[in-house]
Amino acid sequence: MKEESPMNELKGACIVGQSGGPTSVINASAYGVIEAALNSPVVTKVYGAYHGIRGVLDDELLVLDEEDREELALLPYTPSSALGSCRYKMKDAAADETDYRRILEIFKKYDVRYFFYIGGNDSMDTCAKVNRYMKQVGYDCRVIGVPKTIDNDLFGTDHCPGFGSAAKYIATTFMEIYLDARVYDIGTVTIIECMGRHAGWLTAASALAQAKGMGPDLIYLPERDFDMERFLQQVQEIYQRTGYCIVAVSEGIHYADGSFVSEAKTAATDGFGHAQLGGLAAVLADAVKTRLGAKTRGIELSLLQRCAAHVASATDIDEAYRAGKTALEAAVAGQSGKMVGFTCDRLGGYNCQMKLFELDEVANFEKKMPDEMINAEGNGVTERFLEYCAPLVEGETRLPRENGLPRFCHLRKVFAK
Amino acid sequence: MKEESPMNELKGACIVGQSGGPTSVINASAYGVIEAALNSPVVTKVYGAYHGIRGVLDDELLVLDEEDREELALLPYTPSSALGSCRYKMKDAAADETDYRRILEIFKKYDVRYFFYIGGNDSMDTCAKVNRYMKQVGYDCRVIGVPKTIDNDLFGTDHCPGFGSAAKYIATTFMEIYLDARVYDIGTVTIIECMGRHAGWLTAASALAQAKGMGPDLIYLPERDFDMERFLQQVQEIYQRTGYCIVAVSEGIHYADGSFVSEAKTAATDGFGHAQLGGLAAVLADAVKTRLGAKTRGIELSLLQRCAAHVASATDIDEAYRAGKTALEAAVAGQSGKMVGFTCDRLGGYNCQMKLFELDEVANFEKKMPDEMINAEGNGVTERFLEYCAPLVEGETRLPRENGLPRFCHLRKVFAK
Repeated sequence: MKEESPMNELKGACIVGQSGGPTSVINASAYGVIEAALNSPVVTKVYGAYHGIRGVLDDELLVLDEEDREELALLPYTPSSALGSCRYKMKDAAADETDYRRILEIFKKYDVRYFFYIGGNDSMDTCAKVNRYMKQVGYDCRVIGVPKTIDNDLFGTDHCPGFGSAAKYIATTFMEIYLDARVYDIGTVTIIECMGRHAGWLTAASALAQAKGMGPDLIYLPERDFDMERFLQQVQEIYQRTGYCIVAVSEGIHYADGSFVSEAKTAATDGFGHAQLGGLAAVLADAVKTRLGAKTRGIELSLLQRCAAHVASATDIDEAYRAGKTALEAAVAGQSGKMVGFTCDRLGGYNCQMKLFELDEVANFEKKMPDEMINAEGNGVTERFLEYCAPLVEGETRLPRENGLPRFCHLRKVFAK
Repeated sequence: MKEESPMNELKGACIVGQSGGPTSVINASAYGVIEAALNSPVVTKVYGAYHGIRGVLDDELLVLDEEDREELALLPYTPSSALGSCRYKMKDAAADETDYRRILEIFKKYDVRYFFYIGGNDSMDTCAKVNRYMKQVGYDCRVIGVPKTIDNDLFGTDHCPGFGSAAKYIATTFMEIYLDARVYDIGTVTIIECMGRHAGWLTAASALAQAKGMGPDLIYLPERDFDMERFLQQVQEIYQRTGYCIVAVSEGIHYADGSFVSEAKTAATDGFGHAQLGGLAAVLADAVKTRLGAKTRGIELSLLQRCAAHVASATDIDEAYRAGKTALEAAVAGQSGKMVGFTCDRLGGYNCQMKLFELDEVANFEKKMPDEMINAEGNGVTERFLEYCAPLVEGETRLPRENGLPRFCHLRKVFAK
């Protein structure tokens, strides 16, 4: 049902695209845009950019008006990027205008007046550049970014859609592994590697399990320099005292000289200087085994933490959806060059409001964990982080099941001719 | 509420123990025994063996009568072995009677007349040995085994408690990774390693995702000899035709000479002949990368597949619970030297009945996947397997949540003096 036309009317088609690494809820944001666009009286056609901005450049647009509405309604519960994603970094228009001219050509071809891009830092940069170019050439098109990243490292917004679900998966999994790893009468050391190259938010989420008495003993974040000797001593102390030790490590932990621990040649790794295939968890498990002689196990959560929609946070799904819906509404109301973000209140109950940020102010900055959320020893988090993170994992997904397995969205994928 | 005494009455205490690798539902079986024992008029006291048979040998028994009943009721939704587990292989009594004399001493000390042991092959062996010894020395004690193993390799029973939940986790995770791994415009090969040293049941469960159109392209099981060259050709064919390839491999795949692929020195591994730390998935991903030049990723599901109670199968939980309950009821009715197993009908709807098997007939045999469940090419399963496996993953856990995270069972753990 189309609503009445708003005041600041700009009629035309819209394109929504997804970019960068997928999350459990990036499709919830897409659905927020798509549903609102399909219902909007000023949006004449709703296109999906197939594989992000590459779909625009290659003239591969999905006609979302052709999709079944009930099938689209499954998007919020379906992980990964239903429209396809890409990792394509746009050159500055000043250096090379080719891509921008092509985008303008496509926008004109399909009368595109609204462009929504859902992604992380690089995608907000793409958004900002497209917005500037369209202004510069005088083509009336409203451009709004919608954040997504499990890394939670976008500037301005309280947190990013996708983080809450990944945090919930990580906390849940740590609780389960805690129970499993302590089951035998012989002790073990378990090293669990979480994503997060530069920011420790995801690894820190394991502290939610710790707060339940079923989490890691030690948490190492990329915000602090890693010291192998200190690490081994801390593991040894806990292992000798309790018989067990569970460690959460961020993939991005590094030594004081900046080199990643995952790539470093420790005494415990291959003496011929070959980088280990198995990743950080295996490197650290091997170092612990060599030092302590303890039974060790390295576990890499890998892709699972960003696609485990079956354990997504209802709070995250809802906020991701609202961010998409707000993007469409803001654009229709005349906004452009903005990113939808969150401003949250945690006193007297969690409250999350949508807020528009200037794209130029958020793109290309990385938000790391602030000092007050990391403990003095650099091997854990503070109460402040728990207060910040806890509300984001609340609530269960309403993902429907079929034969005991997820019923995810299947798009028909009709391409515009 | 204690029920009326049965005919074949033997009054005394009972011990329930858990052994071997934990599963998502081994506590459901424990609860089946415990609840029925607490309600039985002939069971005078309900003990838990702390860390399996080791708890009996070390006189470390948990008094389960002292636990809160509401807390105990959370056991069916709590992964891992709440009573603690062990991997302790009993010697034959003929060779060394020490352990058996000690067990008898403890049984007499606590007037134990019922012994229930929940575990896999080795545990059924322990059960059988304890049963024989008690008969031999004329101590009246009824011994019943309750199966558990995610590996699903126990003889006699249609399937094993624990398998259904692990299968559900694996199928769900494959669906999610399928969506994630195909999101970019550049192709990838993803190798996912499942547990199962000698039997391929768990890895085969990924075919449930395949049946939903979101599973692996290729499935390699330990029931068939692995051929690296044929594997690379099969991956290459699919990758070049579709741009993507997802592979499910069992940790136990081996070459024709019996050597494990995970330990083999392939051309792609370290040229100095060092075993790779990262495990099978990393070894195969590296081999594919070397041959195809494709972007590859190796993922090891590791402990997660046996402890992910948040995605446990309701069918599995229910059957595990019924197996435990049946064990207690059978023992009270006079049975001993038996294992509770399942006999199932899949025609006209799934139906699972409890059945007693002779311990001596099931212990120490390993049930592998039969030929009719594996395809001719040895890289997938047949419809027959899907019919077998599908009902086992039906239904969702009723695990309660607290702050968006699992509310698992916390036992007080009061030790008998």
